[in-house]
Amino acid sequence: MARLAAALPPGAVLTSPADRAAFETDWRRLHAHPALCVVQPGSTADVAAAVRICAEAAVGVVPQGGNTGLVAGAVPAEGAPQVVLTLRRMAAVRALDTVGDSVTVEAGATLQSVQELAAGAGRLFPLSLAAEGTAQIGGLVATNAGGLQVLAYGSMRALVLGLEVVLPDGSIWEGLRPLRKDNTGFDLKQLFIGAEGLLGIVTAACLRLFPAVTQRVTALAGVPTVESALRLFQAARDRAGTALTMCEFVSGEAMRLVARRVPGARPPFDAPAYVLLELSSPAADHPLRHAAETVLEEALAGGLALDAVVAQSERERLQLLRLREEISDAELADGGAVKHDIAVPIALIPETVAAVEALVRRRFPGYRLNVFGHLGDGNLHVNVRPPEGCSVAAIGPLYQDITCAVEDLAMARGGSFSAEHGIGQMRIASLGRYKSAVDLALMSALKRALDPHNILNPGKLLPAGQGRDARGGR
Amino acid sequence: MARLAAALPPGAVLTSPADRAAFETDWRRLHAHPALCVVQPGSTADVAAAVRICAEAAVGVVPQGGNTGLVAGAVPAEGAPQVVLTLRRMAAVRALDTVGDSVTVEAGATLQSVQELAAGAGRLFPLSLAAEGTAQIGGLVATNAGGLQVLAYGSMRALVLGLEVVLPDGSIWEGLRPLRKDNTGFDLKQLFIGAEGLLGIVTAACLRLFPAVTQRVTALAGVPTVESALRLFQAARDRAGTALTMCEFVSGEAMRLVARRVPGARPPFDAPAYVLLELSSPAADHPLRHAAETVLEEALAGGLALDAVVAQSERERLQLLRLREEISDAELADGGAVKHDIAVPIALIPETVAAVEALVRRRFPGYRLNVFGHLGDGNLHVNVRPPEGCSVAAIGPLYQDITCAVEDLAMARGGSFSAEHGIGQMRIASLGRYKSAVDLALMSALKRALDPHNILNPGKLLPAGQGRDARGGR
Repeated sequence: MARLAAALPPGAVLTSPADRAAFETDWRRLHAHPALCVVQPGSTADVAAAVRICAEAAVGVVPQGGNTGLVAGAVPAEGAPQVVLTLRRMAAVRALDTVGDSVTVEAGATLQSVQELAAGAGRLFPLSLAAEGTAQIGGLVATNAGGLQVLAYGSMRALVLGLEVVLPDGSIWEGLRPLRKDNTGFDLKQLFIGAEGLLGIVTAACLRLFPAVTQRVTALAGVPTVESALRLFQAARDRAGTALTMCEFVSGEAMRLVARRVPGARPPFDAPAYVLLELSSPAADHPLRHAAETVLEEALAGGLALDAVVAQSERERLQLLRLREEISDAELADGGAVKHDIAVPIALIPETVAAVEALVRRRFPGYRLNVFGHLGDGNLHVNVRPPEGCSVAAIGPLYQDITCAVEDLAMARGGSFSAEHGIGQMRIASLGRYKSAVDLALMSALKRALDPHNILNPGKLLPAGQGRDARGGR
Repeated sequence: MARLAAALPPGAVLTSPADRAAFETDWRRLHAHPALCVVQPGSTADVAAAVRICAEAAVGVVPQGGNTGLVAGAVPAEGAPQVVLTLRRMAAVRALDTVGDSVTVEAGATLQSVQELAAGAGRLFPLSLAAEGTAQIGGLVATNAGGLQVLAYGSMRALVLGLEVVLPDGSIWEGLRPLRKDNTGFDLKQLFIGAEGLLGIVTAACLRLFPAVTQRVTALAGVPTVESALRLFQAARDRAGTALTMCEFVSGEAMRLVARRVPGARPPFDAPAYVLLELSSPAADHPLRHAAETVLEEALAGGLALDAVVAQSERERLQLLRLREEISDAELADGGAVKHDIAVPIALIPETVAAVEALVRRRFPGYRLNVFGHLGDGNLHVNVRPPEGCSVAAIGPLYQDITCAVEDLAMARGGSFSAEHGIGQMRIASLGRYKSAVDLALMSALKRALDPHNILNPGKLLPAGQGRDARGGR
């Protein structure tokens, strides 16, 4: 570690356990392993120097952004000697182009700062998720983050125009261009998006901006069944097209949990389930309110909806959004859950929810379901809560049984066992279980081709033995 | 070749020079090298068997779709023994899902057939380009095709949900899922999109569909300068957002060429340059015509536009589109050109066009410029036409001088030397000239990791010595 301290600016290397602790512990406080030190580079050259030194010393490097991930992908894993490399000192804005609609920022910039920068320039950066005040651009790229507006704008991959990346040998890949089109050979930036830091460390990104939204209509509908929720989504999508920028599903259980646990949060009506819709557009003359009201009136008339409300003010809008945003905190306050992040083909959502309910009744009696998610993306958070009075920490091996059962159910429907949260440390077993031999061989081949000595983020994403150092290293 | 004939259905292997000829010659008729044979598999298993046999015999495999590419990427290159593998017998529709908005088709389906399939189901498949009647889905994926509606819907990469791919060793990668979100390890499908068949052969794709467009407003504006064209684009984008689905630039020279060469094609007014705009939306109540008229009125009032017309019927609309679509054919009829497909940051378009004009005046006197392209994507086709009476075939080494000069100019502005056409055989020299050592090393590492014996599409994309068989093979 002396070499790191010598190569980097003063204060860039933290070694005391107290200084390291926050960097060693994941957001959910489920994983904590010691790092040799925490490195805080201030420039891309610093990152490159640190990686080179670690590679020479055969020390693993764990890149860390805002450390808000849910699968312990940005903290050390057990075993190997590792350093945490935090990008938080690299948060500069390198360029803002309101003609070409792009912004170039360093990896440590928070999502919220980029949203605000865009808004200040009359533009929109559409990625939006609960942790946006803390989550950093580098981590959001490395995890291909999703969130609330994927329906209209796509995940982070769709928003990246260019990247600057430090490779596992400490060289720098310069791909920081703002071009909308560039078919000049393999599109290398795709390698690093969603690769969770295993193939390179993102040090800066050039991101797409959009025209600022000039109007926004938010509505909550109560629906009798999940099937109705799906049909309401279809009606809204077919009427509004890309102006439908959010379509969330909230089960009746999830809503009741929020109402019970969060002071002041209360749905305007009781219903078996809910759909939260938002239409928005930069076009001021697109009659979005009329469109939303028409969709809801037709849904009420046809029995797809039981009740509905359209926010009449920004205050009412934020109240509706809060009902969705508070679900995770309400769940935590109520004892936590075995969490899942599955996706299925959208048409299968109603049958999937029914199958999950049947599964829990049959195999985990007394357990309670908390289902919500991104309806328009086919992405459901299927959280299974222990019986009243029982904490999730106390359920022992049932935890893994529940996870396998829920994930099996998604995979049997051609789905995904991790729609937006990624693999990190917590879904490696699932990845080993569900990926084919061809999948695993391709992933290993990529890892070996770019990082043959397994320097970057060891112990994440790939099952043990896949893509590890062929010489039997870490 | 006897092994191929034995392993595949009767009639699947074509060996006579007459049968092979069309498969050996590229669309622009600039490249033609013999293949050992042409293989026409009827199934993914056939493709896998053919690739396995070729890999064992150390024979290169050139995947071919509709053979409409402009860089000779789908025909044999000089040197190595190769077979052409055409996907044309694999054109089945495997699934159509109008709830999840996806369609799964085999690689040999034409783009037009997929557009029509979508339209028949009340949906939109938005990729649109001149060769759509012939171009096939597999080739469009392998080249990350662009075209006229990239502005709102993205290139092919943005439209692919899943792929089925035969790998260089003949194994099959099964990634044909319709999921909107799936963060389970490295996103392997990204490897094959835009890789021009060097890493795998796409045999089927699951593609995104969109709500059908219910209204469409098309307008042509005459503008005094390229700067005005850019500002008109900005005004339309900021007013219409994603409803601005096309924004093309046509220089005055390009328009005069069409008017002279194409019977019945004539712009409604003369102008120094033109912008062709289209607004479209699935939302019937979005007043697009009013939006377009307002943008144009403001442009006329502010001097950004000199004249403008909005199509009042589908017939008028097609007349306007034809002015843009006929440019390449008019150019060919007039003697051809040294073609380029550059991109620059959008804000630099006016200065880039001025620099190109100055370059031709200074270094290639008597040569004539034909500039047009996808303004909203920063993508310009900068075509340089020989002096009157001189054919492009006769200009000798000037061809390469012109190409270098135009590409240098784009690259000096942080641009691209191939925005949408790719590399194939014709831009390999450019790739070697402009890519960094790190770029080339990464591309080679990928090729070696997936195709160590250089079986797939040899002699394309990578400069000689990059990613070739380490044992000194082909």
